[in-house]
Amino acid sequence: MSQIVISGEKTTKFEKKFKLCVGTGRLGLALQKEYLDHLKLVQEKIGFAYIRGHGLLHDDVGIYREVEIEGKKQPFYNFTYIDRIFDAFLAHNIRPLVEIGFMPKALASGTQTIFYWEGNVTPPKDYKQWETLIKVTVRHFIERYGLEEVKQWPFEIWNEPNLVNFWKNADRAEYFKLYQVTAEAIKAVHPELKVGGPAICGGSDHWITDFLHFCERENVPVDFVSRHAYTSAKPHKTTFEYYYQKLEQPEDMLHQFRSVRELINQSPFPDLPFYITEYNTSYSPVNPVHDTPLNAVYLARILSEAGDSVDLFSYWTFSDVFEEADIPKAIFHGGFGLVALHGIPKPTFHLFSFFNQLGETCLYRDDRLIVTKRDDGSIALVAWNVVMEEGDGFEQQINLKLAIDAKEVFIKRQTVDEQHANPWRVWQQMGRPRFPKPAQVDTLKEAAIPLLRTEKREGLQGWLLLSFTLTKNEVTFIEVMPVKDETPTYAGLDDRLIISEHN
Amino acid sequence: MSQIVISGEKTTKFEKKFKLCVGTGRLGLALQKEYLDHLKLVQEKIGFAYIRGHGLLHDDVGIYREVEIEGKKQPFYNFTYIDRIFDAFLAHNIRPLVEIGFMPKALASGTQTIFYWEGNVTPPKDYKQWETLIKVTVRHFIERYGLEEVKQWPFEIWNEPNLVNFWKNADRAEYFKLYQVTAEAIKAVHPELKVGGPAICGGSDHWITDFLHFCERENVPVDFVSRHAYTSAKPHKTTFEYYYQKLEQPEDMLHQFRSVRELINQSPFPDLPFYITEYNTSYSPVNPVHDTPLNAVYLARILSEAGDSVDLFSYWTFSDVFEEADIPKAIFHGGFGLVALHGIPKPTFHLFSFFNQLGETCLYRDDRLIVTKRDDGSIALVAWNVVMEEGDGFEQQINLKLAIDAKEVFIKRQTVDEQHANPWRVWQQMGRPRFPKPAQVDTLKEAAIPLLRTEKREGLQGWLLLSFTLTKNEVTFIEVMPVKDETPTYAGLDDRLIISEHN
Amino acid sequence: MSQIVISGEKTTKFEKKFKLCVGTGRLGLALQKEYLDHLKLVQEKIGFAYIRGHGLLHDDVGIYREVEIEGKKQPFYNFTYIDRIFDAFLAHNIRPLVEIGFMPKALASGTQTIFYWEGNVTPPKDYKQWETLIKVTVRHFIERYGLEEVKQWPFEIWNEPNLVNFWKNADRAEYFKLYQVTAEAIKAVHPELKVGGPAICGGSDHWITDFLHFCERENVPVDFVSRHAYTSAKPHKTTFEYYYQKLEQPEDMLHQFRSVRELINQSPFPDLPFYITEYNTSYSPVNPVHDTPLNAVYLARILSEAGDSVDLFSYWTFSDVFEEADIPKAIFHGGFGLVALHGIPKPTFHLFSFFNQLGETCLYRDDRLIVTKRDDGSIALVAWNVVMEEGDGFEQQINLKLAIDAKEVFIKRQTVDEQHANPWRVWQQMGRPRFPKPAQVDTLKEAAIPLLRTEKREGLQGWLLLSFTLTKNEVTFIEVMPVKDETPTYAGLDDRLIISEHN
Amino acid sequence: MSQIVISGEKTTKFEKKFKLCVGTGRLGLALQKEYLDHLKLVQEKIGFAYIRGHGLLHDDVGIYREVEIEGKKQPFYNFTYIDRIFDAFLAHNIRPLVEIGFMPKALASGTQTIFYWEGNVTPPKDYKQWETLIKVTVRHFIERYGLEEVKQWPFEIWNEPNLVNFWKNADRAEYFKLYQVTAEAIKAVHPELKVGGPAICGGSDHWITDFLHFCERENVPVDFVSRHAYTSAKPHKTTFEYYYQKLEQPEDMLHQFRSVRELINQSPFPDLPFYITEYNTSYSPVNPVHDTPLNAVYLARILSEAGDSVDLFSYWTFSDVFEEADIPKAIFHGGFGLVALHGIPKPTFHLFSFFNQLGETCLYRDDRLIVTKRDDGSIALVAWNVVMEEGDGFEQQINLKLAIDAKEVFIKRQTVDEQHANPWRVWQQMGRPRFPKPAQVDTLKEAAIPLLRTEKREGLQGWLLLSFTLTKNEVTFIEVMPVKDETPTYAGLDDRLIISEHN
Repeated sequence: MSQIVISGEKTTKFEKKFKLCVGTGRLGLALQKEYLDHLKLVQEKIGFAYIRGHGLLHDDVGIYREVEIEGKKQPFYNFTYIDRIFDAFLAHNIRPLVEIGFMPKALASGTQTIFYWEGNVTPPKDYKQWETLIKVTVRHFIERYGLEEVKQWPFEIWNEPNLVNFWKNADRAEYFKLYQVTAEAIKAVHPELKVGGPAICGGSDHWITDFLHFCERENVPVDFVSRHAYTSAKPHKTTFEYYYQKLEQPEDMLHQFRSVRELINQSPFPDLPFYITEYNTSYSPVNPVHDTPLNAVYLARILSEAGDSVDLFSYWTFSDVFEEADIPKAIFHGGFGLVALHGIPKPTFHLFSFFNQLGETCLYRDDRLIVTKRDDGSIALVAWNVVMEEGDGFEQQINLKLAIDAKEVFIKRQTVDEQHANPWRVWQQMGRPRFPKPAQVDTLKEAAIPLLRTEKREGLQGWLLLSFTLTKNEVTFIEVMPVKDETPTYAGLDDRLIISEHN
Repeated sequence: MSQIVISGEKTTKFEKKFKLCVGTGRLGLALQKEYLDHLKLVQEKIGFAYIRGHGLLHDDVGIYREVEIEGKKQPFYNFTYIDRIFDAFLAHNIRPLVEIGFMPKALASGTQTIFYWEGNVTPPKDYKQWETLIKVTVRHFIERYGLEEVKQWPFEIWNEPNLVNFWKNADRAEYFKLYQVTAEAIKAVHPELKVGGPAICGGSDHWITDFLHFCERENVPVDFVSRHAYTSAKPHKTTFEYYYQKLEQPEDMLHQFRSVRELINQSPFPDLPFYITEYNTSYSPVNPVHDTPLNAVYLARILSEAGDSVDLFSYWTFSDVFEEADIPKAIFHGGFGLVALHGIPKPTFHLFSFFNQLGETCLYRDDRLIVTKRDDGSIALVAWNVVMEEGDGFEQQINLKLAIDAKEVFIKRQTVDEQHANPWRVWQQMGRPRFPKPAQVDTLKEAAIPLLRTEKREGLQGWLLLSFTLTKNEVTFIEVMPVKDETPTYAGLDDRLIISEHN
Repeated sequence: MSQIVISGEKTTKFEKKFKLCVGTGRLGLALQKEYLDHLKLVQEKIGFAYIRGHGLLHDDVGIYREVEIEGKKQPFYNFTYIDRIFDAFLAHNIRPLVEIGFMPKALASGTQTIFYWEGNVTPPKDYKQWETLIKVTVRHFIERYGLEEVKQWPFEIWNEPNLVNFWKNADRAEYFKLYQVTAEAIKAVHPELKVGGPAICGGSDHWITDFLHFCERENVPVDFVSRHAYTSAKPHKTTFEYYYQKLEQPEDMLHQFRSVRELINQSPFPDLPFYITEYNTSYSPVNPVHDTPLNAVYLARILSEAGDSVDLFSYWTFSDVFEEADIPKAIFHGGFGLVALHGIPKPTFHLFSFFNQLGETCLYRDDRLIVTKRDDGSIALVAWNVVMEEGDGFEQQINLKLAIDAKEVFIKRQTVDEQHANPWRVWQQMGRPRFPKPAQVDTLKEAAIPLLRTEKREGLQGWLLLSFTLTKNEVTFIEVMPVKDETPTYAGLDDRLIISEHN
Repeated sequence: MSQIVISGEKTTKFEKKFKLCVGTGRLGLALQKEYLDHLKLVQEKIGFAYIRGHGLLHDDVGIYREVEIEGKKQPFYNFTYIDRIFDAFLAHNIRPLVEIGFMPKALASGTQTIFYWEGNVTPPKDYKQWETLIKVTVRHFIERYGLEEVKQWPFEIWNEPNLVNFWKNADRAEYFKLYQVTAEAIKAVHPELKVGGPAICGGSDHWITDFLHFCERENVPVDFVSRHAYTSAKPHKTTFEYYYQKLEQPEDMLHQFRSVRELINQSPFPDLPFYITEYNTSYSPVNPVHDTPLNAVYLARILSEAGDSVDLFSYWTFSDVFEEADIPKAIFHGGFGLVALHGIPKPTFHLFSFFNQLGETCLYRDDRLIVTKRDDGSIALVAWNVVMEEGDGFEQQINLKLAIDAKEVFIKRQTVDEQHANPWRVWQQMGRPRFPKPAQVDTLKEAAIPLLRTEKREGLQGWLLLSFTLTKNEVTFIEVMPVKDETPTYAGLDDRLIISEHN
């Protein structure tokens, strides 16, 4: 078995772009207590900088209404709920990456909706009123949160307008119009506010090029380019409960990132930042892959490498408090969330938590491993073993030869795999209770804790030989920390005497 | 290997007397935040009914002072701290079992003290003033907490007066005098208050007999008999840091309990309740055995069986916030606590937590196993494997044939042994840091979680064959819960399709 | 000015029925954090036993869906949200009084809805499926919470079926059918579960008589009779924001209670309990009277006397987290809540809190005053001064001659009136900010605290002369507590010396 | 009555030096929960940067011990408690200003102690061991908290060595020796660590000059000069409970500050920062003046002006959790604390909280008033009325003519005086209960809230005439905030209709 020698002489910077942003169910859900409990957990262990979700202008947040006053119809702007939502975000130390959409019913030109919660996806019936809505809303944000704060919130116009179910007829010209009006309205409030689009999903990347040429041609402001990325095909089976889909290999997502970056590079705005404002394996909120360790190992390489090609990438989503396909029908239902209902971390949660504990100095990286040095001198690595096949086995051994400063090291290893930190498996053993009782929830939480293994090891002439085996779909996090041995300070210490021959 | 057949036809009652009471470091420590954090943890997971500790009348709680007012010396009674302490106990849903002692300096007849914190162990210089102190104090308790509450607080007179270091000269006659004055003072406040003694440690059990005859002869009130029990011999080595002692077999403690109970039975008060107001393996606060899994397995049989002979037994102590032998010199220092400094549960904590989750219907019990049924129909058992020898191995297999009602069961097993839920071991691997840093404390907390294993099993004609192996010094907790399988309600479910051949 | 002499010789029992139940916005709102924050506050200070709201079967809670599985339509019962809601209620120590309604869209026979949130108010399209829904749901409650718990939950069938906007055509025969099917379905799950109706509002009290005769004639189970009560007329002005209505005198509500009780007494079930499952001044969620001190003083007599005629009366509602008339458009918007948005207590909150601190022994009661004795011997009274007129003045003096045991008393008085604990007034001073900033919310919270006045008084031969003036719309709470004067124990005390002539 | 015209044209900077540091009871008390509860409250409302107290090296913190290992006596350094204490400080966002002292018993050359808690005030028996103790301790701090953190901790050597009760014989030469050894030991650990002294109290200011000349002559490091300041004379009466003392006028303290600053200016180190590491009215922990509104008004001018002459001044102390004169004998006992036992804020707490809410732009300042502008454009002022005489009356009127930008302003006024936010007075009305019950504590907390008054006012041609009357010993805090009147947006609003003639 080959050995990877890591001398620490050549290093690169590992920027933690994976924690710049995370997705959320529609903003109206942020009023819920369970949603905020999950957000608290995620922020404590990962600490995303931004959060992005649909529904800012949806009727449940209710910013826009038309009312009749003395016989005259006029708009009424209600910030009761959005204030509560953004207050909560900022209190949890996370900023909105503001997606502008969908259409308030009263302002919509049509009745087409998407999702269980019926987001209206038609253009405004009156662009003038839309423009006013945007300006009033953005001004309100500035008045409440201050200009310096709001200047840090990217505004992204609409969501996946290249799909007919997200934008009526996927009408590109209409989208460009919407973009122009909206972007200009935002810039009119303050020119330093940041706007971008076109927020498309994969499959129509010519939109990117067209969009940027449009912006150049029409002199429309654009501060970033955004796109989504999933690696699942159309479902090969759908049931009342679930979608089952083929997944591409993890590399596929990295290819998507690079090819769009290339399009931007060749556009009139080659220096624009590129934001992946959504990504995940499957784009379905009921694909059980999201609940599995496979989802975690699959994404490990993305967390490790995507930052090379994009400026921000946002995991879709942080929580299973989510309603696109109706209220969740069971605690595990294939939702996107890092956190399942009742606050249970899924394997992908730990993936993010592990990467979050890496250092920013990269000592070594390949397609199943990233090794970093932390500021305190300790070494932290994540390794993973993607197995997209049925059955047992598939173990992989990794042999490292690590340069270390210390004579002795304490090695702490945490494991997520099919058998550990996999509450979905334990839930199956319980008989897949849809609405588990408190004691069952407690067990599922206990079952969501990674396996911990520790040992003390001596180095050999400045090197540590570190070999470990990854099981099927294991993601493992290993920390190698210098030991300052205080044992000699315990005068007369003799553990054997605890139960000596005298007993 | 033999099989234990548990049909569930003959059952006994398992009273959870082990949770009636727990010991504490001197009461003055209950002002500390860390102490109360540990108490909160213990009460959440175990929920003791009473707490008992030294130092009610010690000068750091400061109830008794002598002051000079207008040239005249007079007592001043200060309840500032004891109110805060007892308020906190009751807020944590635990009542004081009130140990009367030690002697306030101002009221002491001598200067002999015990412990780092210098508890004065001499008789009062003036029994009249002592009597007043007792009355004023007990009346204050009633005024603050109400008579109905205080009637539930047993008052125990002094601590281990049969030892010269706890009571000057171990003077029995003087103790009987102290007992009489104190008990009568308490009864004078209200006749339904409960008093008892003599709170001796082992080795002088004739005191029990003498004490009860004294009470009869002198018509002195007594509502319970109390004694302590440890199973350690004199240390065969002491160091600046540690005591090393020989331990008797666990049965030894049960023998102690039964023999004293027998003495009471033959006394003038054969029906008096018998309280073990302290017990543990070693009586030393710096014996590392307390930090080990051995301490847990050793005590398992006591928790299982002691309730047969005694009415209350109180583990000494709930927390390592304790100062008898000076301020703890290292996070692990051999303290009595269920909880180590920084809130880290030790193996014995889990022993109590496991027993606390047993049912009250006992299906089977022997010297390494107790099997119970819980009110919800599930089976819960604790098994243990005491190994008081060096080296590896020593595994034990247990084979059970359990009558079950359900077709399928979910089995949840939690393990504490040398390798798991043993933070003391991980601390050694870290180089025994005396004053660990926050990240080290986090690791120790993670290392203090029992190993969880789960499985789903089918019964066979109403029986479940349950075999498991106990490692060296393992205490294992197994729950067998009926499965209500909801899997068929997920129409079209096919886990194989998550990663099908289509992939 | 006349004097009321209260010797304490004749007493009656004051049962705190006002705290048996409280109303809530539709159950789906109970998922929200702000809702639960308000509930916590209300439970801490008042502690209602039950909570009742609409929308158990509304689509946002989502219990009932119809789905297609393998080409066949079939019901799917989803308890994800209702479990979370009822778990939260019980965690806050409040039980549901379960209102059965409104109609799930998929089960509805029509499209008529009520409220912004579109509760469907048509009969089921299929009573068999309705019956199954009821049984499955109630069985789920029992499985999750236990039979003993659910036996304590009254089930009330529908809401105000005598109004055409709450029940299609206000069709009485159809309601009786719905009642019969539902009540029998619940009793089929367990005969000890409690059912009742007809939950009408005032104006059609013949329904009560007809309903009870129907139950007798058809042998339909009924365990309690329920009705609502408001004292406001039709609005004399409505605006986009507000309803303005004439209010009857407070007595009017008591008359309503007594007259319906009389109807029950003369019915075939004269012993049935009578529940007022909703009451308030105005029935509109946008009548500003709810935000005023007038609302508090107006209801004082109801809290004092309603328990004489009814077995339970439930203030509608505990919180302004409420959406019947759209999302609240301003922090103060005339909502029913005891607590305004952002957790600000309104005057009526304090009314309940004051009554909650009364004793259960009534010493004296009239139409503006209730005087009680508490278990600890202290006297607690509430007095109020209803002024339904514009302008200043309207003060009232009350002169009491109270028998007291103590030589000295400490008198604590808390006042809510136009000037104090009236955050609505301060909000007006601020310029009525619709969406106040955090600092403004802080000020409003400070402004919501009752004015405190304290004094020490000596009695005269066992009597205390207590005179006080009530301002316009003041509700005042006075506690008279014996003083145990410890001043003499401070030897040498001389407050004058703090700043003596030496200075 | 004269008018103060504040046009806002000339402004000065108001630096909030009063919040740079606060005093504490001995560090060992920081282990207590009540202590930390008070610290939390103080940090939330005031937010001091540093905390300074005695007892770092006292035996209850227990850093230094001498132990015998294999027959040889040797030092043992125990950081168990100091780590817990400093961890807690930093967690509450406050840094230690480290006072080095008193002497560990084992290292002391004598037995002289100070205070109930017996701090040893004798020089080290061996300066070499002392030096090692200092180095080991400071190195430990750096290892635990990092060099960057510890570089921000000033180290002050000893406390009031100019008093015979704080330093044996008040031996100046011995102090200089101690200072030199200690300062050099600290600098030897790292030269950028900050050291200072001589921490004297008033009355021996020649020590300052001598000390600085000594440092220059002997080339001893010194980074700041420190001194204490109280304005009370020797007690004219002491009792078992209390000290009564004459107070100088508030100016006296400012004179003390200026005169010492002058001494430094004329010393060899004219640019050294000058720290008042303790100040208060009385230096006695049992002078009831500390519990009064007088204490607050008295200190108002110090908070307003002291920053002109000193670089840091530290109120002695934040909490009545304090034991110099034994355990507090009553809830109000004349302790130094901003917060009384049971977490009750005293008048001086509010003084600090009010000053903390001032802006940093000073518009006007005199000896009873400070007017500031805040960043948001609002005006905030504190005014006070010192009355050191018996009796009623003594009101003072203040008339301001304030330039304002807004048409309308919202005025919020909070008052502390003899009648309001004066829990000490209410406690007297209660009969001065030494150990109050929970309900009494609740009343005292309610009584500790400042009186709130609000109004809306119109300006006149850019000016606001603001007149207010200060009662005896009132400190008042007034905020003048622009109103953005949203009233016109409520279409059809008519408050009179809530109770119209229709009623």
